Amino acid sequence: MIALFTDFGLNGPYVGQMHAVFAHTVPQERVIDLFHDVPHYDIRAAAYLLPAYAAVFPESTVFLCVVDPGVGGERAPVALRADGCWYVGPDNGLFQIVARRARQFESYEILWRPARLSSSFHGRDLFAPVAASLARGTLPEMRPFTLTVPPGLAWPDDLAEIIYIDAFGNAVTGIQAERFSSGRLIRVRGHQLAYAPAFSAVSRGGAFWYRNSSNLIEIAVNQGSAAEQLGLHLGEPLEIRD
Amino acid sequence: MIALFTDFGLNGPYVGQMHAVFAHTVPQERVIDLFHDVPHYDIRAAAYLLPAYAAVFPESTVFLCVVDPGVGGERAPVALRADGCWYVGPDNGLFQIVARRARQFESYEILWRPARLSSSFHGRDLFAPVAASLARGTLPEMRPFTLTVPPGLAWPDDLAEIIYIDAFGNAVTGIQAERFSSGRLIRVRGHQLAYAPAFSAVSRGGAFWYRNSSNLIEIAVNQGSAAEQLGLHLGEPLEIRD
Amino acid sequence: MIALFTDFGLNGPYVGQMHAVFAHTVPQERVIDLFHDVPHYDIRAAAYLLPAYAAVFPESTVFLCVVDPGVGGERAPVALRADGCWYVGPDNGLFQIVARRARQFESYEILWRPARLSSSFHGRDLFAPVAASLARGTLPEMRPFTLTVPPGLAWPDDLAEIIYIDAFGNAVTGIQAERFSSGRLIRVRGHQLAYAPAFSAVSRGGAFWYRNSSNLIEIAVNQGSAAEQLGLHLGEPLEIRD
Repeated sequence: MIALFTDFGLNGPYVGQMHAVFAHTVPQERVIDLFHDVPHYDIRAAAYLLPAYAAVFPESTVFLCVVDPGVGGERAPVALRADGCWYVGPDNGLFQIVARRARQFESYEILWRPARLSSSFHGRDLFAPVAASLARGTLPEMRPFTLTVPPGLAWPDDLAEIIYIDAFGNAVTGIQAERFSSGRLIRVRGHQLAYAPAFSAVSRGGAFWYRNSSNLIEIAVNQGSAAEQLGLHLGEPLEIRD
Repeated sequence: MIALFTDFGLNGPYVGQMHAVFAHTVPQERVIDLFHDVPHYDIRAAAYLLPAYAAVFPESTVFLCVVDPGVGGERAPVALRADGCWYVGPDNGLFQIVARRARQFESYEILWRPARLSSSFHGRDLFAPVAASLARGTLPEMRPFTLTVPPGLAWPDDLAEIIYIDAFGNAVTGIQAERFSSGRLIRVRGHQLAYAPAFSAVSRGGAFWYRNSSNLIEIAVNQGSAAEQLGLHLGEPLEIRD
Repeated sequence: MIALFTDFGLNGPYVGQMHAVFAHTVPQERVIDLFHDVPHYDIRAAAYLLPAYAAVFPESTVFLCVVDPGVGGERAPVALRADGCWYVGPDNGLFQIVARRARQFESYEILWRPARLSSSFHGRDLFAPVAASLARGTLPEMRPFTLTVPPGLAWPDDLAEIIYIDAFGNAVTGIQAERFSSGRLIRVRGHQLAYAPAFSAVSRGGAFWYRNSSNLIEIAVNQGSAAEQLGLHLGEPLEIRD
């Protein structure tokens, strides 16, 4: 199985052109659109979203991951083998948290290049053929490589910020939910929120935090938009209190 | 064939995670994204949209339907056998109109539970595995069950309201189109609209009602947005006049 | 392989209902969502986008193309054989540029009609079954036909206008990129832009033009939105200067 994780958005021709590569080269392979609206260019949000939402996929999945503001520049294309899955994409910090949390881990620089490589769409021209190749069980030309730690950004174990807002207005954080007990309070934008086990445990319009289905702490409002109601934006910091 | 009908939106990781379940458990099955932007939490709009847009699917299709504001609470998970198709989802009124219009109909409570059931994403954890099972021809553990009629809402045969607005600004109603002759007028938000058989029968910018391709009455403007031009919103009532 | 190119938007039930036709009639065929947010009703933008974004697909692809403001009216349904691929859709100018640029080219009027043909959704009722048939290698009933040149519009070899704005705010033009040297400047909305080979060659927030991955000239801002920053809209004219 191949899973796509990008900031391209579903609109436009980009996702379809990547699917065309797979349909042509590995037509028997299932290709899943996992996440295409990762916040644009936001490598750090992507780095914390990726291991959370990838966890539900079976071993041997190949993840094609493209959040790549430096496309066409010097950053290396890489492939990671982590806990039985492959991850393919740019070496720009995107795989920082996958690598840190993996029990088993190897990383490679991809040396293979296609006959025609555009300057702006390595997702289609380079990473998709490499992912197809790995899905088939064939290693492209590559060599052991140590991932770069991008400078100027903090990489805590848990990122206490809003890193995604979904279509319902639920605000996802980069905090692994199992590390904090139900008794804790969350403070965000001047609001203080208690835990609830489920949407249905809260009255309509009530705000709360809960453990989402991918084990991240999430801020929500029952049958409403937490983002609108609490004024939350991407990057908003939050605090976990006793 | 499995068809997905939800209010999740296409963005975010939710649709992809459901597809991952199917790719893993029934890889040979075709899984269709039928409708993912049913109005959020709007069980009644969903109930009238579902039979209209499901009608084009062949017998033996399994419909996975999730508009589920009560997820994590007491509502039962159900499976319906209606006219040769399966429908899987929450017992909250979502299947009210499918059940009423079916010629043959049986309903069951789903007793099977997965090893891990999140409080917020039964679409992925419970309904998707059940739909996969039914697509394979295997019945999950379930027992005969009478669907609940949700209190406090009217359930007429035809719902004379705007229940969906599409990307063109066309406004879909819950009224079965074949029940009303072309001579009738529709009154909505102070506008009085005549019937036209097709967009091309109306001058550019003209508003009209017509029978849409799924047999619902729809308000449209030729090469324009009926929603914007007539000021229509979800829930807007309308009246059919002689 | 079948590729879909429409102005339907991904939301709503339209794309899914077309996929249902394919899943039912040609279940073994890969069906790719290439482009579903072509500007609404904009036949000319579509005509210049189509050959650019179709170029990456392999020979024998069947393109189902629907930008069809005249649906239900007199325009003919057509099928084109161009350089080893099929194109199916309305005869309204949509195939004007594909036809002009093809080395080998034949065009046909589709005479086959389905048992049930809605007035508004020929994509599902007529073009999808025809595309499925062509993908299987079976010709539907059709006869040689000369494509209509729609009156009142100019059809230059390169369309010096913004014809698409993507999710990043990049502004795509209808100009084939290989025809203009890197030394040229582009003037658009009072801004004068120089060429850059890649996003990473420009400082953050800098505007430039480049050759996009489908060989169209595109206006972009590194890690920003060119549309917002430069005030660009669909239809905006531009000028290429020495």
